[in-house]
Amino acid sequence: MPDGASGMAAPVLVREDRGAVATLTLNRPAARNGLSLALLDALSAALRDIATNSGLRCVVIQAEGPVFCAGHDLKEITAHFADADGGHAFFADSMARCAAVMQAIPAVPQPVIAAVQGMATAAGCQLAAACDMVLAAEEARFCTPGVEIGLFCSTPAVALSRAVPRKAAMEMLLTAEPIDAAEARRIGLVNRILPGASLRAEAAALAARIAGRSALAVQLGKRNFHRQAGLPLAEAYEVAAAAMVENLLAEDAAEGIGAFLGKRAPEWRHR
Amino acid sequence: MPDGASGMAAPVLVREDRGAVATLTLNRPAARNGLSLALLDALSAALRDIATNSGLRCVVIQAEGPVFCAGHDLKEITAHFADADGGHAFFADSMARCAAVMQAIPAVPQPVIAAVQGMATAAGCQLAAACDMVLAAEEARFCTPGVEIGLFCSTPAVALSRAVPRKAAMEMLLTAEPIDAAEARRIGLVNRILPGASLRAEAAALAARIAGRSALAVQLGKRNFHRQAGLPLAEAYEVAAAAMVENLLAEDAAEGIGAFLGKRAPEWRHR
Amino acid sequence: MPDGASGMAAPVLVREDRGAVATLTLNRPAARNGLSLALLDALSAALRDIATNSGLRCVVIQAEGPVFCAGHDLKEITAHFADADGGHAFFADSMARCAAVMQAIPAVPQPVIAAVQGMATAAGCQLAAACDMVLAAEEARFCTPGVEIGLFCSTPAVALSRAVPRKAAMEMLLTAEPIDAAEARRIGLVNRILPGASLRAEAAALAARIAGRSALAVQLGKRNFHRQAGLPLAEAYEVAAAAMVENLLAEDAAEGIGAFLGKRAPEWRHR
Repeated sequence: MPDGASGMAAPVLVREDRGAVATLTLNRPAARNGLSLALLDALSAALRDIATNSGLRCVVIQAEGPVFCAGHDLKEITAHFADADGGHAFFADSMARCAAVMQAIPAVPQPVIAAVQGMATAAGCQLAAACDMVLAAEEARFCTPGVEIGLFCSTPAVALSRAVPRKAAMEMLLTAEPIDAAEARRIGLVNRILPGASLRAEAAALAARIAGRSALAVQLGKRNFHRQAGLPLAEAYEVAAAAMVENLLAEDAAEGIGAFLGKRAPEWRHR
Repeated sequence: MPDGASGMAAPVLVREDRGAVATLTLNRPAARNGLSLALLDALSAALRDIATNSGLRCVVIQAEGPVFCAGHDLKEITAHFADADGGHAFFADSMARCAAVMQAIPAVPQPVIAAVQGMATAAGCQLAAACDMVLAAEEARFCTPGVEIGLFCSTPAVALSRAVPRKAAMEMLLTAEPIDAAEARRIGLVNRILPGASLRAEAAALAARIAGRSALAVQLGKRNFHRQAGLPLAEAYEVAAAAMVENLLAEDAAEGIGAFLGKRAPEWRHR
Repeated sequence: MPDGASGMAAPVLVREDRGAVATLTLNRPAARNGLSLALLDALSAALRDIATNSGLRCVVIQAEGPVFCAGHDLKEITAHFADADGGHAFFADSMARCAAVMQAIPAVPQPVIAAVQGMATAAGCQLAAACDMVLAAEEARFCTPGVEIGLFCSTPAVALSRAVPRKAAMEMLLTAEPIDAAEARRIGLVNRILPGASLRAEAAALAARIAGRSALAVQLGKRNFHRQAGLPLAEAYEVAAAAMVENLLAEDAAEGIGAFLGKRAPEWRHR
């Protein structure tokens, strides 16, 4: 029986909403938090639900056990090499579900923070790279070792190459060597390095600070950020200027600017 | 009476042309060099004039007082919340004027160097990020704190996300925390850090060095740089190879190469 | 008689295939390895041949003498200013041949590693920047000094601006100042810095490690990396997910995953 398939087994993903912060904890520590279909689907379902929950303002993705996430579940994959089609249908379906999770992270309205406590490998590295910000424990490591097993990390490369300079991404992909938290921060994959013991508390505190702001401003801002990122400059400014006007016309901007000029705390309507 | 609206008041923008270098100094120190419409329009007018002045080869943007630029003028904005349309027309017009300045900086033929002596906030951070190079005093700080006042820095994000890695930009935008000059250099927003006391002299010296080169080569090069930046590789090489041929056929290349091979100083025709 | 045009003269490019690694050594040390037409054509021909040689799995580009590569051959250029067309046809042809080499590097199936032992200038800097990875000796320097001779490094800017942050590229292009290996690594142009004495051995060892992996996985991965790089996120994931499925259906993935799970060394079919 696959983990999480029964009410008796521990769920593959634990969700806890505290105040306006949703925390998703990968919970297959014995399987190094491998992204089984069950875990991918649980992530998709959670992100879909969070996206429409107006009481939630920020998301943290963290993991149980010593490994953050070891990527796709290799045992699940090998089980399908014997399929009549050699696994084609299963692999295509798996990759589609995985890509859906990775695209849901920038697409959900709320900022998503990864809190990486240990090794993040292959699609696990991709999961971190797909988040809006990454906090890492000093012990965290990042690796895209697919070439070691004859399976280049081609989908992880999508998220990785959008987070770090091209040669740094290529080095990780071609050498399969893990990098530590300091190197990951140097190349732009990690925002902040923290002692492992305080990682979860710091991630929760950062998420709570972000959740305390105007949700309208934060969500409009995140949406605009990803929308303008790939556009030519003139188009990017058109999109962003329209976002600014929309934001200015919302009550929270008037309240926020008024509070700032009046040196008082703002009372957000959209919080 | 708005500053700069009268002949008696200090101008909001001071322009000084020395040799082939135009220096634009933001001059609303009491208003933290906030980008009022008057200041935005003065910047646009100055850049428009400089663009067609073939005697000018380089531009420096610097600021008076302890703050480089605090972004949009919030008092000007709040005054329009009471408009019949809630400020819509005014905000749309303001954003269009601001985006025009930010796009004029890469569009003027001459390289534009920011010399940031203090805090650069929101659209002030954007102003620096839009320049071709940024010199910063040790005391300089950079911040996109819009979320603090319910107004996400969506237009600053356009310039910022084109200058620094994506997660670094997102961190500044979501946390609203200022970064110092060293961190700004680490992420690619700042080229060089200088003692505050020598910032203006160093910026002037760098601008003079650039201004001493062949204007034809520098201007063709800047135009090509921005043109090829977003293109697919094959198209980028087509554009750039054409720029190289045009440059080679101009007299200054023959003169420059001849001087280099002959170990003498070049005499630029286009300088 | 141009170097390399005769059987007696040393060849401008030395190619040595050892095991599955092809090493290309720029061999015009007396001319600072300037990219004469002969050298550009030799590089093109070598890369074209390597691309179709299924026994070769990785390429190293290195150079003889104290200079890695000084860019275009200026003497060759000046000789054509006296042409009836001022050199137009020759320059256009030269730039096309150079751009072909620079685009062949990401296009060949095998990863290409630059081993930069000395100064890499102008199109020489571009040659390094175009490679998938760059190893640099401590003595290596990188420079795009075209503005010094009235010829902006517009084509080098294509490769440079895709490897490093925009302001760092602009600083190199506008100031013409060389940067050392440490600065080049800081901005993302260099992956690893090595003592000069061990550069070639380390490059060969890295190439051999990459060549020891499944060629199918490595080559499919490199192709996908460059293909997805400029695409919008959804399209990038479509391309990359298809690459993953193709890779999974190849024998080497089954072998590699089986070997990993069975804790044995893989036996690549495609190696």
